Amino acid sequence: AVAAPWVHAQEPRLRWRMATSWPESLEPLFGGASHFCQRVGELTGGRFEIRPYAGGELVGGLQVLDAVRSGTVETGHTASYYYTGTAQSLAFDTAVPFGMTARMQNAWLYQGGGRELMNERVFRPLGIVAFPAGNTGTQMGGWFREEVPDLAALQGLRMRIPGLGGEIMQRLGVSVQTLAAAEIYPALERGVIDATEFVGPWDDERLGFWEVAKNYYYPSWWEPGAMVSVYVNAERYDALPERYRQAITAAAAETNVRITSDYDQRNPPAVRRLRENGVRFRRFSDDIMAAAEREAYALYEELAEDDAQWREIYGEWKAFRDLQYEWFGLAEQGYARFAYGRGEVMGDG
Amino acid sequence: AVAAPWVHAQEPRLRWRMATSWPESLEPLFGGASHFCQRVGELTGGRFEIRPYAGGELVGGLQVLDAVRSGTVETGHTASYYYTGTAQSLAFDTAVPFGMTARMQNAWLYQGGGRELMNERVFRPLGIVAFPAGNTGTQMGGWFREEVPDLAALQGLRMRIPGLGGEIMQRLGVSVQTLAAAEIYPALERGVIDATEFVGPWDDERLGFWEVAKNYYYPSWWEPGAMVSVYVNAERYDALPERYRQAITAAAAETNVRITSDYDQRNPPAVRRLRENGVRFRRFSDDIMAAAEREAYALYEELAEDDAQWREIYGEWKAFRDLQYEWFGLAEQGYARFAYGRGEVMGDG
Repeated sequence: AVAAPWVHAQEPRLRWRMATSWPESLEPLFGGASHFCQRVGELTGGRFEIRPYAGGELVGGLQVLDAVRSGTVETGHTASYYYTGTAQSLAFDTAVPFGMTARMQNAWLYQGGGRELMNERVFRPLGIVAFPAGNTGTQMGGWFREEVPDLAALQGLRMRIPGLGGEIMQRLGVSVQTLAAAEIYPALERGVIDATEFVGPWDDERLGFWEVAKNYYYPSWWEPGAMVSVYVNAERYDALPERYRQAITAAAAETNVRITSDYDQRNPPAVRRLRENGVRFRRFSDDIMAAAEREAYALYEELAEDDAQWREIYGEWKAFRDLQYEWFGLAEQGYARFAYGRGEVMGDG
Repeated sequence: AVAAPWVHAQEPRLRWRMATSWPESLEPLFGGASHFCQRVGELTGGRFEIRPYAGGELVGGLQVLDAVRSGTVETGHTASYYYTGTAQSLAFDTAVPFGMTARMQNAWLYQGGGRELMNERVFRPLGIVAFPAGNTGTQMGGWFREEVPDLAALQGLRMRIPGLGGEIMQRLGVSVQTLAAAEIYPALERGVIDATEFVGPWDDERLGFWEVAKNYYYPSWWEPGAMVSVYVNAERYDALPERYRQAITAAAAETNVRITSDYDQRNPPAVRRLRENGVRFRRFSDDIMAAAEREAYALYEELAEDDAQWREIYGEWKAFRDLQYEWFGLAEQGYARFAYGRGEVMGDG
């Protein structure tokens, strides 16, 4: 009986709102956000309630950072690279072209000092604490009306691709288009654009791109592993009881592995269905990959000249990535190339 | 004040013990088990204490399943394939040769119905509830005194390799040796064995194998992703308050991603140090890989004839694995082969 008032004092009833960037139809992502909220509730005996909202319900899907920063909502689930207009380095929290895969990103953030670095240098100054909370894995390169067998075929191609990937495509001669999600399908159908990227088989199938473009290229060298994050307003986070902070930390980590697993579970049957619908899976040629990689790192060096924050994080990140590539090129890739790397010779393109 | 007695009633003070299979020196694994215990404590305001013990402290490192099953300890952290003498199907919880990588294993267990299947069919009948709680990633194939350039070189080779990997090696003509961990180094040094497998660069470096064998082969086709698990005595688990069960679930998932990240963070610098010490990294030839894969699946079919439990789980598992291989052969492998799959041509073997 003595302990009871202490327990009670430690555990305020809280009702928070989570703004997300996802429509409910993006089940792996919105489902992941919902799972996070549910788990935090379960871990706190229902005293710490967080309710998730789809993009546009509270704030626009690309306003999550601002909403959390300003305290309009206490927390969010989003992809940091939507906000590179606020700080270019936010890209490292999600994905950068020729960067890290999902496993490498986790290694960097959880055990390689990346989370501390990103929070201290990037998120805290914005009034936010961020937690890794999901990854799509390596995305697909996207939908092309015609084949693009080599680098020359990219010249003048009108492609919808945002972010750093778009900047690099532009350097390769692509005419980069900006379109909101709802505009992509009709533009591709009418031939206003020749190509678009989106996410991967499960998400893309639902948007129906396969009906109007049959060449599905891989990989997305611009998103070798796109991570999504839970944001918490820093002031609100710091005022939480320790136990609630731990609940957020553990639930975010569980959500991270859950979303990745959900994508990995949903994508393979979608691949089969797309094949049945006449989609051809084609690998980007090595000359496209090599030229894109060259332009990517040229761009990063240019950014480092003008942006001290980018320079610092890029330096740490790049050293970590290089070590990861060395290691993953051995056992992991030695296994993959034999076990399922022969797909391309049995495959389509 | 009304709520306080309820909160108190929901939250008994518990002191549990966790038997692990790890010496404290295996930092990623014992550190992961310790992290799990700490997080459960933090999530429960310190009321649910679990204390981790190294292998041999409470029970032997390979007696964890029996200790949890009998209730000698409430919980454990171990690798299920140590106990295939109890049920052959336990191998699916850890790794089987030419099976799933860490990400695929997560997809199967968290989102593909694997955890429900394994708990219902294998663990519950043993009086245990199991949670995924760590993965080494694809392991290295091991240390060879001489090069083994092809399948013929395996004939008569004396190699220390346990489990299903050992059974397959035997079918390939290897003379399989059983040695306790402490006996491996002297046997390799004196030439009593020609080769041994263990885990990967970080763990193996500490055992000093590089001093007495310079050929470090990859990948471990017998452990493409070795998972470790948290076991909880089923009767004790069912009697826990819901909130404590949630704490175990979330902390185990966090530990899963943490241990994988810890290995991924520790292995790359160990690769560099081993190279500096004259170790040559060599890839198993395709004829060895192909013959081993053939024997692996022949063995699984044989096991399915005599073991109804194996047959049921193998069927589900194999269908899931085949879908995963199809998908991972596209974007993920398409990226890897370009980005870090060229290591072998810049590399040693």
